[in-house]
Amino acid sequence: MELSERALTIQASPIRRLTPLLLEAKKRGITVHHLNIGQPDIETPKVFWDAIKNYDEKVLAYGLSDGLPELKSAVVDYFARYNIVLRQSDIQVTTAGSEAVLYSMCLVTDPGDEIIVFEPFYTNYNGFGTTAGIKIIPVTTKAEDGFALPDLQEIEKKVTSKTKAILVCSPNNPTGHILTAEEMDKIAFLAKKHDLFILSDEVYREFTYEGEKAISFLELKGVEDRVIVGDSISKRFSACGARVGFIISKNPDVMAAALKFAQARLCPPTLEQLGALAAYRMDPSYFEPIRKEYQARRDALYETLKSNPEIVVKKPQGAFYVMAKLPVEDSDAFAAFMLRDFSYEGETTMVAPGDGFYATKGLGMNEIRLAYVLNVERTKRAADILLKGLLEFKRKSK
Amino acid sequence: MELSERALTIQASPIRRLTPLLLEAKKRGITVHHLNIGQPDIETPKVFWDAIKNYDEKVLAYGLSDGLPELKSAVVDYFARYNIVLRQSDIQVTTAGSEAVLYSMCLVTDPGDEIIVFEPFYTNYNGFGTTAGIKIIPVTTKAEDGFALPDLQEIEKKVTSKTKAILVCSPNNPTGHILTAEEMDKIAFLAKKHDLFILSDEVYREFTYEGEKAISFLELKGVEDRVIVGDSISKRFSACGARVGFIISKNPDVMAAALKFAQARLCPPTLEQLGALAAYRMDPSYFEPIRKEYQARRDALYETLKSNPEIVVKKPQGAFYVMAKLPVEDSDAFAAFMLRDFSYEGETTMVAPGDGFYATKGLGMNEIRLAYVLNVERTKRAADILLKGLLEFKRKSK
Repeated sequence: MELSERALTIQASPIRRLTPLLLEAKKRGITVHHLNIGQPDIETPKVFWDAIKNYDEKVLAYGLSDGLPELKSAVVDYFARYNIVLRQSDIQVTTAGSEAVLYSMCLVTDPGDEIIVFEPFYTNYNGFGTTAGIKIIPVTTKAEDGFALPDLQEIEKKVTSKTKAILVCSPNNPTGHILTAEEMDKIAFLAKKHDLFILSDEVYREFTYEGEKAISFLELKGVEDRVIVGDSISKRFSACGARVGFIISKNPDVMAAALKFAQARLCPPTLEQLGALAAYRMDPSYFEPIRKEYQARRDALYETLKSNPEIVVKKPQGAFYVMAKLPVEDSDAFAAFMLRDFSYEGETTMVAPGDGFYATKGLGMNEIRLAYVLNVERTKRAADILLKGLLEFKRKSK
Repeated sequence: MELSERALTIQASPIRRLTPLLLEAKKRGITVHHLNIGQPDIETPKVFWDAIKNYDEKVLAYGLSDGLPELKSAVVDYFARYNIVLRQSDIQVTTAGSEAVLYSMCLVTDPGDEIIVFEPFYTNYNGFGTTAGIKIIPVTTKAEDGFALPDLQEIEKKVTSKTKAILVCSPNNPTGHILTAEEMDKIAFLAKKHDLFILSDEVYREFTYEGEKAISFLELKGVEDRVIVGDSISKRFSACGARVGFIISKNPDVMAAALKFAQARLCPPTLEQLGALAAYRMDPSYFEPIRKEYQARRDALYETLKSNPEIVVKKPQGAFYVMAKLPVEDSDAFAAFMLRDFSYEGETTMVAPGDGFYATKGLGMNEIRLAYVLNVERTKRAADILLKGLLEFKRKSK
């Protein structure tokens, strides 16, 4: 009696697989600074909480499979601010961005098919790919190039008869790269040439720090029917535990099929959709101070990391992560060391090992991903402790 | 640019595909009695609401991928009442029973593999099977036999080298059948003989009406490592919109792999887990009046249906559904008729067409599934209107 191949091979989350060591560290009374996971300390908007707390139905009933119509309407209004014209029927509420990505994959692939992804990438694409029974085909981007996309030819080399889509994420988790108009045109060109879908993970839309805005693939002409966007309130409104996301496409066939996947699991959570509705109705001025706060955190983290010349790091343009190359051979061992063997004044810093963000075996072994989701002071403190831990790790490794 | 085969073939929920006609009927001012979906009108427990409304964190953060430890502990206590001894590590919180079933399938099958299911079955198994890229192999049970399992040989005929599991649901949605000890032994025998898993959907555990209790596959000796149970609070605490369920197995390899699937999607919704925790901590006396209420509803629905001798219906022993054979050729057309073309004193009744509950093409075309989830008076009224609609439908069909 054996488990399935996919159960045996599905990746343990490199972000979460250290949880047992974390719990032990906490038991020992260690204060752990979480740079390992994109869990912001920004308060969830009060209107979100109020909407849930003011809900006065007696029965917590099933909702519609494609979500609350009022919420979809609010999302239409939200996109209108970006001059993106959507109809409610272009939008379906999902159980977080996670489900949106899984459904996107299932919509365009059958088992054995391939999706091209630029690595390093959001590690959980691996898990969704395994669940769907498909192959994630990596195209490597490098810190040295600012994680820009490689030449068109480099990408095109990976296209096979099994390729169904190119999956992109901008602003990018984990690199912080924001796709340029030229890079997006490159993707669009390839999609048209090879008849591919474009799966676009755009959950960090608001988080940009260098003046450039993040262009949505929903804005691109000529690929309207090829684009499927995954979106989420987790980061936008600091509501990670809400599990409310969206799948968005102007292709009605895509949306009709997405609805059938959604019907199988009945509905996304009801209460958090009401919270999300209230959040989407807030004035857009909500975002600016938060964007500035993240920018300050980024600067604090980046400057601290740069103070160690052995660390290779590129200043992220968006989202709230940075991939850093450390002078170590095994960043997984380093991450474990930080939890198990190191503390400074009763504190330590948790990081996500880099290898899990690559599909190419052997890459990322000397990298870590850090999330700048704590306030400036804590981010600095966490980064300082990280540098101290790194010195100690290197000393002990000798 | 084509959608995937699975996107093209995934079943539209027969329970939800009539939603557009429903919305139109409501627009016309028609009161619709919902016998089509297992959405009870029983109030969600006050302690559930209180737990959510008293939550006073400022950030709605990610939870653990396998769920709130306190909730798992409360579920251990709940099962202890049934003399089922579990460890917290045997339990993982999922985003509703839906996710538990999908993960169970992915844990034991790879694309192209097969799972044996007794039809009629909970229709969304089809959707999860399509998502997972596997085949649902039906073994037919019949109203005339009280939906009892067929002979061992009948079931065994369907076992192939691709078969990985037998999926059962007891008390059963949609038939109301409760597996007997003998039937369960039959399943266990086959599982051991052919090295299969047993996936057991047990979300209706409390809803039994003939004195017999529903035995859990977790109680069976000799198959401990083969059993994976899907569970949910949706029906137990009338909290369908909460999206909190469980995957339960005493096989540590199963649970370790289940955790990796769970990590990919980060966590189940946080708030509703707190509500569920409060509900599980209620005194077990909570269930008895509710069980009695459902029993009265069942009796009301059953007696009304029986008043038309052309309807073939078996008195359900558990859950809160009944499969009824109508004197029509196309129950899908009948269900649509009830919403689009029929009303009585401004009211109509929505039903779920039967064919969607079968995997064998052509079966269930003259059946409907009814849920007795409304109070006795409304159930009676809904059933009366159904009978009136049936007469009218037959008249017009001539």
